[in-house]
Amino acid sequence: MKKQLPWAKKQDNHHRKVRIVRKRNKRPGLPPGTLVYTGPPRTDKVRISVLDFDENTVEESEPETPEDCYDFRDKSTISWINVDGLHDVKIIEKLGNHFGFHPLVMEDLLNTNQRPKIEDYGDYIFIVLRMIRYEKDELKDEQITLIVGDAFVISFQEDIGDVFDPIRDRIRKGRGRVRKMGADYLAYCLIDSLVDYYFTILEKFGDQMEQLEEDITVNPKASILKRIHELKRELMFLRKTLWPTREVLHNFQEIESKLVTKTTAIYLRDVYDHSIQIIDAIETYRDMLASMVDIYLSNMSHRMNEVMKVLTVIATIFIPLTFVVGVYGMNFDYMPELRWKYGYFMIWGVMIAASLIMMAYFKWKKWL
Amino acid sequence: MKKQLPWAKKQDNHHRKVRIVRKRNKRPGLPPGTLVYTGPPRTDKVRISVLDFDENTVEESEPETPEDCYDFRDKSTISWINVDGLHDVKIIEKLGNHFGFHPLVMEDLLNTNQRPKIEDYGDYIFIVLRMIRYEKDELKDEQITLIVGDAFVISFQEDIGDVFDPIRDRIRKGRGRVRKMGADYLAYCLIDSLVDYYFTILEKFGDQMEQLEEDITVNPKASILKRIHELKRELMFLRKTLWPTREVLHNFQEIESKLVTKTTAIYLRDVYDHSIQIIDAIETYRDMLASMVDIYLSNMSHRMNEVMKVLTVIATIFIPLTFVVGVYGMNFDYMPELRWKYGYFMIWGVMIAASLIMMAYFKWKKWL
Amino acid sequence: MKKQLPWAKKQDNHHRKVRIVRKRNKRPGLPPGTLVYTGPPRTDKVRISVLDFDENTVEESEPETPEDCYDFRDKSTISWINVDGLHDVKIIEKLGNHFGFHPLVMEDLLNTNQRPKIEDYGDYIFIVLRMIRYEKDELKDEQITLIVGDAFVISFQEDIGDVFDPIRDRIRKGRGRVRKMGADYLAYCLIDSLVDYYFTILEKFGDQMEQLEEDITVNPKASILKRIHELKRELMFLRKTLWPTREVLHNFQEIESKLVTKTTAIYLRDVYDHSIQIIDAIETYRDMLASMVDIYLSNMSHRMNEVMKVLTVIATIFIPLTFVVGVYGMNFDYMPELRWKYGYFMIWGVMIAASLIMMAYFKWKKWL
Amino acid sequence: MKKQLPWAKKQDNHHRKVRIVRKRNKRPGLPPGTLVYTGPPRTDKVRISVLDFDENTVEESEPETPEDCYDFRDKSTISWINVDGLHDVKIIEKLGNHFGFHPLVMEDLLNTNQRPKIEDYGDYIFIVLRMIRYEKDELKDEQITLIVGDAFVISFQEDIGDVFDPIRDRIRKGRGRVRKMGADYLAYCLIDSLVDYYFTILEKFGDQMEQLEEDITVNPKASILKRIHELKRELMFLRKTLWPTREVLHNFQEIESKLVTKTTAIYLRDVYDHSIQIIDAIETYRDMLASMVDIYLSNMSHRMNEVMKVLTVIATIFIPLTFVVGVYGMNFDYMPELRWKYGYFMIWGVMIAASLIMMAYFKWKKWL
Amino acid sequence: MKKQLPWAKKQDNHHRKVRIVRKRNKRPGLPPGTLVYTGPPRTDKVRISVLDFDENTVEESEPETPEDCYDFRDKSTISWINVDGLHDVKIIEKLGNHFGFHPLVMEDLLNTNQRPKIEDYGDYIFIVLRMIRYEKDELKDEQITLIVGDAFVISFQEDIGDVFDPIRDRIRKGRGRVRKMGADYLAYCLIDSLVDYYFTILEKFGDQMEQLEEDITVNPKASILKRIHELKRELMFLRKTLWPTREVLHNFQEIESKLVTKTTAIYLRDVYDHSIQIIDAIETYRDMLASMVDIYLSNMSHRMNEVMKVLTVIATIFIPLTFVVGVYGMNFDYMPELRWKYGYFMIWGVMIAASLIMMAYFKWKKWL
Repeated sequence: MKKQLPWAKKQDNHHRKVRIVRKRNKRPGLPPGTLVYTGPPRTDKVRISVLDFDENTVEESEPETPEDCYDFRDKSTISWINVDGLHDVKIIEKLGNHFGFHPLVMEDLLNTNQRPKIEDYGDYIFIVLRMIRYEKDELKDEQITLIVGDAFVISFQEDIGDVFDPIRDRIRKGRGRVRKMGADYLAYCLIDSLVDYYFTILEKFGDQMEQLEEDITVNPKASILKRIHELKRELMFLRKTLWPTREVLHNFQEIESKLVTKTTAIYLRDVYDHSIQIIDAIETYRDMLASMVDIYLSNMSHRMNEVMKVLTVIATIFIPLTFVVGVYGMNFDYMPELRWKYGYFMIWGVMIAASLIMMAYFKWKKWL
Repeated sequence: MKKQLPWAKKQDNHHRKVRIVRKRNKRPGLPPGTLVYTGPPRTDKVRISVLDFDENTVEESEPETPEDCYDFRDKSTISWINVDGLHDVKIIEKLGNHFGFHPLVMEDLLNTNQRPKIEDYGDYIFIVLRMIRYEKDELKDEQITLIVGDAFVISFQEDIGDVFDPIRDRIRKGRGRVRKMGADYLAYCLIDSLVDYYFTILEKFGDQMEQLEEDITVNPKASILKRIHELKRELMFLRKTLWPTREVLHNFQEIESKLVTKTTAIYLRDVYDHSIQIIDAIETYRDMLASMVDIYLSNMSHRMNEVMKVLTVIATIFIPLTFVVGVYGMNFDYMPELRWKYGYFMIWGVMIAASLIMMAYFKWKKWL
Repeated sequence: MKKQLPWAKKQDNHHRKVRIVRKRNKRPGLPPGTLVYTGPPRTDKVRISVLDFDENTVEESEPETPEDCYDFRDKSTISWINVDGLHDVKIIEKLGNHFGFHPLVMEDLLNTNQRPKIEDYGDYIFIVLRMIRYEKDELKDEQITLIVGDAFVISFQEDIGDVFDPIRDRIRKGRGRVRKMGADYLAYCLIDSLVDYYFTILEKFGDQMEQLEEDITVNPKASILKRIHELKRELMFLRKTLWPTREVLHNFQEIESKLVTKTTAIYLRDVYDHSIQIIDAIETYRDMLASMVDIYLSNMSHRMNEVMKVLTVIATIFIPLTFVVGVYGMNFDYMPELRWKYGYFMIWGVMIAASLIMMAYFKWKKWL
Repeated sequence: MKKQLPWAKKQDNHHRKVRIVRKRNKRPGLPPGTLVYTGPPRTDKVRISVLDFDENTVEESEPETPEDCYDFRDKSTISWINVDGLHDVKIIEKLGNHFGFHPLVMEDLLNTNQRPKIEDYGDYIFIVLRMIRYEKDELKDEQITLIVGDAFVISFQEDIGDVFDPIRDRIRKGRGRVRKMGADYLAYCLIDSLVDYYFTILEKFGDQMEQLEEDITVNPKASILKRIHELKRELMFLRKTLWPTREVLHNFQEIESKLVTKTTAIYLRDVYDHSIQIIDAIETYRDMLASMVDIYLSNMSHRMNEVMKVLTVIATIFIPLTFVVGVYGMNFDYMPELRWKYGYFMIWGVMIAASLIMMAYFKWKKWL
Repeated sequence: MKKQLPWAKKQDNHHRKVRIVRKRNKRPGLPPGTLVYTGPPRTDKVRISVLDFDENTVEESEPETPEDCYDFRDKSTISWINVDGLHDVKIIEKLGNHFGFHPLVMEDLLNTNQRPKIEDYGDYIFIVLRMIRYEKDELKDEQITLIVGDAFVISFQEDIGDVFDPIRDRIRKGRGRVRKMGADYLAYCLIDSLVDYYFTILEKFGDQMEQLEEDITVNPKASILKRIHELKRELMFLRKTLWPTREVLHNFQEIESKLVTKTTAIYLRDVYDHSIQIIDAIETYRDMLASMVDIYLSNMSHRMNEVMKVLTVIATIFIPLTFVVGVYGMNFDYMPELRWKYGYFMIWGVMIAASLIMMAYFKWKKWL
């Protein structure tokens, strides 16, 4: 019976489902602006790391307390403060109060189930995005919040580990333009690497779909349908995060804020184009998966039909023959054929002839 | 026969259907502005409760008659007048006349089948929403009307019992911002807790869907389809109330009225974001349910096919064998094989060999 | 064979179909503005009835000729001239010329296949709507044209019988606001009662759908599918008339014309809300019907599968048994079992055991 | 085998397909503005006919050469120059050059695969439409180009035969408004008769669909599906031409050009309304066809199921009986029943009883 | 078994899939503006060819190095510099720097997976398009970038071979308008020939679909479904490139740039119309393919049903007959019929009669 239930094992399936609406620890009805961390409970220490740079100098540090970051607010150099972990609400609160964040910003930041969005608060721009990446071959979804100020970018991540290492490298080694430009360009770089990672994901998808397509042809079994539906759900999930991301990018580029320079806006248009490209690819993949389901189903039903047809034909040939031998098994006193010398052989002849004719007929009708 | 009809029992099904277009007591063609209560008939007393507060004081009362509420109109403190029950048209009429509501406002308020909407009447804003909540594990849908004035909010509910207790608590204990701000912020708080409750509903949905998904895998039976369709209908229903709610939130936040401050508008944008998040989740759930139906159906047909295939194969093996034994049951006078000493055993050998060959063939063809 | 063709009888089916594009008597290519009545031919007399009123007086009359209505154009009291029947083109022409209608208005008025629309001709507003109502338990669709002037409303109906009686009553008895307000408010009242009637229709639909849902569960037969498709078509038809009606209501309320007062516009917004509510309900019903088809089909195929499975299992059990008895029907000279004393009883034992084992196996596999 | 392939015969099917992208004689890459006729090759003479009129006079002529039409450009009377046939590029070129058409206008005019469109070139308005009409009971699609100038309308048709005869008549006999108004009104008349013809087409469709619906009920066979798909394709085709036509009508009416008077714009709004009405009807027909396919398929599968069920039940009744008679055909030495005097009759009794019980059971289960 | 897997062979299938998201050599996270060629690796030399012309002179050259092209930037004659091959990043870089391209332009140019787009950089317009053409009967997709300056057009292709030869010819021979107009008109010509090529592709599609439709009728087999899905995917691909192309054309025509003259804008509107025409045709083809799948599936299931029905009927006729002969094969001591003289012949008569009656019944029921 195991065979019929091919989607019983993979436990991580449930993971993915939960993600659509994550459990919120917050009780409904709490006063808005109440700072409650809504992600999965964690106990490790929150890690803060700072990269402070201008065209000529780079300074890297890992402050122990949020208070150590206070100075970066008013320094003229560009500071990138990265916070790994949101479970220590106090740290967030201290940082937020010092840098002057709106209470709702801080609530949203902690509520790790946000839809990507961008909001302009005048002194800073508040951006929520989702970082999708592979960790041990599984898609991992994490909320990432950017607060872009005049000369600082603060990024909040749910967990340690991200897609930003190449940017850190570029800052350290002064490669590319990032050291020469402002906080908006740094924010652009971060977003760009988030969006760029989707291409990696799409390539993996492409590989899996090629594999699937081959399997449908060479070795079609029930588990394929399950894999198709898993891919479909993952695409659905990517799409759900990408559409609002695209909107964020559009709005970031159009925003009328002194914080975003014209040069950076051109670069943002480029990421925006990438996001459309990715959405395009996702839509195409979805269409392809739908086609695959069709092919798989028609393939399956075709095979089933073939089996049934052949078996039915066999049965159909033997049923009349069985009738014939039944006839001569009757015990009537007077059955002349039984007495003939070659009756037995004649009857064999008749039966062989009949079955050959039937088979020829079936063949001619293309039933066999 | 009972087994084939798995959706005969649950009587509450009918409940839900009726809700889509509730019976209206009003006869078509009555003059507009005629006050007729259109909900289910009730006999208990209408309960009015008032919370009157400013930053420093809170006063709570349960006036017996609508006349006792008249003073709150012109008091400078913020008053929240909550009316539980709409069946006593006189009370509504008195309140409405004193507070100066438009006749259509009063008609809509009593017609408990409204679509969520917002209308700005200058002196007050008229908001119709729907309060969905679980009562004894069943979704309950109730119309809730808010009239937001300069220093008062009047809320009309169809029934006793709501999702506002945490807000009452916050007002009583002075937690959060609500005591320091105006009537618009109070209205925001009420709407926020309505919308927040959807997250609770979605979590329950998530649980049910996880359960469903497991059942499809481990124990698929016809009743699953019925449960899927029930969930689908409930999602449909949530969606139907949420879309106009989202619109109401959008318009509330954009409204150009002296009654809505800029600070509150920022908070309203936040609820608006939540409503989009919920709609997103509902859409995803719908897609998932559609996937489940596909998986269930293909699972069912796969099982059916498996059964039919095995049974057909068995029949196909025995039909030729039956023919063979039929042959030697014939009564021809001259059948040499019958006279052979080991004819019987030989025929057994032939039959066993034939069936083994056929089984091997079927196996090789992957039919078995 | 009658059973397979359950939708042969109901002749009124054809009725409904014709309505989608009614036969037009007009030949294509006639000069525009040519007055040709395109409805079904009729011979009875056209009935004109007039209600002339202001706040204090009401006068009711049934003029014999159109000329008798000429005076109402310039009277300062509000006049409602209702024309039942469009087949006497001359009457329409006379009225139209006296009141100064545009030739296209008169053509559209007579062409009873119009889509709801509103057009502002300065001196009067031209509104085409459709009046759907039950007559002898059947949906009846009729074109209704309103011409709203400064102090008159002329309404043209195709046939005697309408949904306006409550309004006539209100005018006669001076109930509600209608006597105190202008022609625009009278037009609003007429439209409101048209739209309100949809709620009556929807309630009937609701009843039929409840009945259907019960039948699918308790007594599913082929005729259900036919009834579902009939309901679907009727919904389709309602929807087709409602969408443009909704648009008309929107435009009527937004129109910039001296003929529509601000007060009336507020009332029109209310009917507009109703029309959206009805459209919502129709969409929900459509979704429900689609669900019903799914449930019905899967229910049917489930029953079929059950039947086939049981029968196949029976066949499968007996086929091997038939083989066994065939074996001992063979006439070999030397078959030791045949000579054993209890051979016959043993073979019975073997067969009973075999069938029990097979049944247990099928049961365990959940095939039975 | 012929029966399974019901759509082999009708050759005209291919016709319709080709129409979607007609073969273009033009090689890709030719300089734009090159005049190449892209329709099917023809050899007959191009026919030019002119109707020149004002309120008092009408003159009709059939000029042999394009040069004979030159005078009509500057005459103050309204001239309608109709060109039947586009294959003689020279004629078009001469006319075009004299009347001052843009090279692209002339290219589009000859490229008979255009989508309906309207372009304002200042001195003239260039309109491409498609004329659909029945010719020998088959839909015929032809490109028709109108060039509307100050006092002339030039219409280019692909072929002789059109829907304009009633307009010619009206001009000759001075019926209607056409003689009193300008070139824009003449253009309106031509377009109106094109659009009006759709109603004729829709009526034919209605008849065919009524026929189809009856056939599905009374005499369902495989060829019905083919007819449904043919109708679907024709609807698809009509829709494809109507949507851009509707757009053309909208733009024509909104165009800000000295060539279109306000009076004519009102008439154009009327045709525009007609086009929406037709699109509505087409959408309804599409829905109805989809319903028909559903009914047909479920009808078919219902019949198939009925057949299979009855046959399976028969087989199921006889298989156990065959087993029973097999039992008493065994040759055991000791089978007590065989020796009983009434054994044979008893066994008949048992078998009859068993089959009756089984049939009753099947009946009770509603399987029969 | 080979027959069931008809889509195993064609290896080029995989080609097409990869194209949707091509492998990118670029690692995510590289600084933006880094020049990395992302297409398939190539080793041959990049070929540059220049056509420099004005109304009177044409000069053609194939410069060896990018430096040889530097002069064309400031020449007053129109220069078309065509670069075949993007794998030599240095050449692109040198050209780009001299002509003053934005770093992102150069990055996009090399990233051969772009979506069609147009960007106005003031001094030049940057256009990315895709060139689809048949090469050895297979669709080939290539990125083509146009940079349109004041007096030059630079086109970058991935590979040698394009659809521009007719334009080269026109320039050389001075045919058409191209020599008399500016760089914008040259760009228009290039785009026009790209879009025009789609008509060639559509014609091929039309042929294939006609073939398919015939095959479905005359010779339906499983491989048809695969061909339909292949066509569907190719249409999907064309559509995916055409929609953004259409947008590019729209924006090119509306762009407010000194680089685009009004005359050229009119021509661009024409290509834009063509692109809509092509999209229309693609949509129609998609609908037709969907219809074909429906017809194919219903055709297949119809055939299957026919087979099963006939076979089942045969089995059903013989099963009762076999029972009858089984009866007279029983060995009861007392079976009167066995002793009758003509019992044997009577039983034959009974059996023949029974089978004839059954066949007549089946015929009457239309089961046979």
